[in-house]
Amino acid sequence: MRYKDNYNPTISDEVLFDEILKEKEHIGYYNLVNQDTSHFKEYAKSVQHKDIVVIGIGGSTLGTYAIYKFLKHSKNLEKKLYFLETTDPIDIESKLNGIDLETALFIVISKSGTTIETLSIFKYIHSLVKIDKNNTVIITENDSKLNHYAKINDIQTFEIPKNVGGRFSVFSAVGLLPLAVVGIDIDALLRGAKRVSDSFFSKGEEYKNILKKARFFVEYKNRFNINVVFSYSARLEGFNKWYIQLWGESLGKVDINTTRQGLTPIGIIGPVDQHSFLQLIIEGKRDKTVTVVKVDDFDKNLKIPTVHLEGLEELEYLHGVEFSTLINMQADATIEAINDLGDIPCDVITLESVSEESISSLMYGYELLTSVCGKFMYIDTYNQPGVESGKIILKKKFEQKK
Amino acid sequence: MRYKDNYNPTISDEVLFDEILKEKEHIGYYNLVNQDTSHFKEYAKSVQHKDIVVIGIGGSTLGTYAIYKFLKHSKNLEKKLYFLETTDPIDIESKLNGIDLETALFIVISKSGTTIETLSIFKYIHSLVKIDKNNTVIITENDSKLNHYAKINDIQTFEIPKNVGGRFSVFSAVGLLPLAVVGIDIDALLRGAKRVSDSFFSKGEEYKNILKKARFFVEYKNRFNINVVFSYSARLEGFNKWYIQLWGESLGKVDINTTRQGLTPIGIIGPVDQHSFLQLIIEGKRDKTVTVVKVDDFDKNLKIPTVHLEGLEELEYLHGVEFSTLINMQADATIEAINDLGDIPCDVITLESVSEESISSLMYGYELLTSVCGKFMYIDTYNQPGVESGKIILKKKFEQKK
Repeated sequence: MRYKDNYNPTISDEVLFDEILKEKEHIGYYNLVNQDTSHFKEYAKSVQHKDIVVIGIGGSTLGTYAIYKFLKHSKNLEKKLYFLETTDPIDIESKLNGIDLETALFIVISKSGTTIETLSIFKYIHSLVKIDKNNTVIITENDSKLNHYAKINDIQTFEIPKNVGGRFSVFSAVGLLPLAVVGIDIDALLRGAKRVSDSFFSKGEEYKNILKKARFFVEYKNRFNINVVFSYSARLEGFNKWYIQLWGESLGKVDINTTRQGLTPIGIIGPVDQHSFLQLIIEGKRDKTVTVVKVDDFDKNLKIPTVHLEGLEELEYLHGVEFSTLINMQADATIEAINDLGDIPCDVITLESVSEESISSLMYGYELLTSVCGKFMYIDTYNQPGVESGKIILKKKFEQKK
Repeated sequence: MRYKDNYNPTISDEVLFDEILKEKEHIGYYNLVNQDTSHFKEYAKSVQHKDIVVIGIGGSTLGTYAIYKFLKHSKNLEKKLYFLETTDPIDIESKLNGIDLETALFIVISKSGTTIETLSIFKYIHSLVKIDKNNTVIITENDSKLNHYAKINDIQTFEIPKNVGGRFSVFSAVGLLPLAVVGIDIDALLRGAKRVSDSFFSKGEEYKNILKKARFFVEYKNRFNINVVFSYSARLEGFNKWYIQLWGESLGKVDINTTRQGLTPIGIIGPVDQHSFLQLIIEGKRDKTVTVVKVDDFDKNLKIPTVHLEGLEELEYLHGVEFSTLINMQADATIEAINDLGDIPCDVITLESVSEESISSLMYGYELLTSVCGKFMYIDTYNQPGVESGKIILKKKFEQKK
């Protein structure tokens, strides 16, 4: 009896890495870690406005919001960032009520330059306040219609490179300009991202971790079709939302064999969701991987005080415990409960501190993970035909209405 | 050849309904629609405080937040509701910075009376401001330790009935008291819930819709293990979170045959997530059902103005369109894109208006749907052993630490 096979269930690490290196030559986000940021910092220095209003949606706002939300309470920021992104009329009105439009700076962000939501809100703002070069800046592709409008009206623009997709654009002008304006250290952001990039492309720690994780996710994608990120800090809520877009829109695709692929992202927050979603993780169907994100040092010394409450003595073991210790012990208890079960894939990412470097390492690492998963799945990670189809139907509906 | 079988793939409608009727006798939430609300309204009338701070977590806050978030911008509420729920120290500090503790009313909610997060935050508040019967009210079970503490300190209490679970408690004191205090019409809330209840228990429209939906979800649970709620209003963000707890914690269970069950809830917001998650729905693996929630009448006449922007003429078809029309056309475009594909299960729930009746109908309907799914799945819908296991590990960790 003889036997031969050609079972190569998946691409080898070496071939995968070569593919990523090839992709790096034409997919723009990989190289954002090495850019010159002086024009962003210069512009930021010139801004006197206190209220900074970003008008954009999806990839134009989610990454910026993630970083701002993570850092804003730990930095002494003098300016405030607002996001106008939905067409919900109640939401637009209630958000505008909190902003002094006369003294605000508007940052209008649309890669294509014709995003319906963004332009509709921009037009609405136009009807409330004079828009000109003194209170407006535009971020878009160099040859978009929005860029044309800016040129005609002498409004300053910053470029979104054509080869940087919306959901991978946080380290381009899309994220760096508004964050620099409100006082976030954008060079520190890029340092954090570059550390991960260098480690990955020199086949260091990040390369090993990311390839192992991506390989596991893709090989078991039909068994574990849901990837939960369980973030143990309320400040990571924005990161969760950004992750959901990055993951869902990049990996929900038809592959080269015309098979529908798709890993479903879920973002939850501990300890709040420890009181709900954890039940589904622990006792529910084994269809989920769980990634726990922890923060080592919250840099806040809030303690549970020694307060004797008659009748509630059983909780006195908490006296003197810092809230940061409590939340991290809650995370550890969740990890232990999951690991005790033995059949739920789980990894833990620990951020050292609430800093620019931490959040950008996390985000850049997730961008690389997404790219590697996409390669393993034989899909185009960077397009979004399913989103475009909805836009086409919407436009048709308006035409029918006329 | 003869043939016989005993294939009864699932419980019949009649048997199911009888089971629910039996359950109604001892599961408390079913009967909350008929309660007397005068003691809540009386208490609410007596409150002079402007800042109302709810201290609670999970089922003690999510439902209240859902209703408050949906209604607050459409009602002229004179009081503001805050929620302290996480142990994240940065979050606690930043939220407390926005509240005048000296003049605030604290509503402490814990069903068991010994929830670690709630009591830890309550103790922390104790160290910042004097707590007494003038600024505190407690909602808990009648025989809990927290109730004992309240009695000793002459603090008023409201009861969470033992047979009303946290995630099903929004129409008990847990939700009704804080909502009444800030000026929400709680009788209108109960009217909306009762309408659904009456229709269900008289085998009307709601009975048919809920049984059909639950039967589909459960019969196809292994094929479609993810249930997406796609809400087309930013004001439904709180509802989405509440739904995630209700669904995940109720249905993530081991059934009577010791098989792990679990339908995974996802809540997304249109049109923001139309720019991300929609891609995964349209092109990704067919493992999701989609429920679109729309609002017919936003009661806001915000229009996209006729503003000519040179270079951007192609968007002028939007001129004069109300934002509420736009968001609903976006919802319709998404529904059409999904239905065109023909292989994604999709239903549409339309709320008439932004009102108490609308949101409570939606929520009570989801409670009934959860109960019916639980019956079809042969699980205990109302316990949460997986959540409890995490709590036990946490306590052990503290004991080891000492």
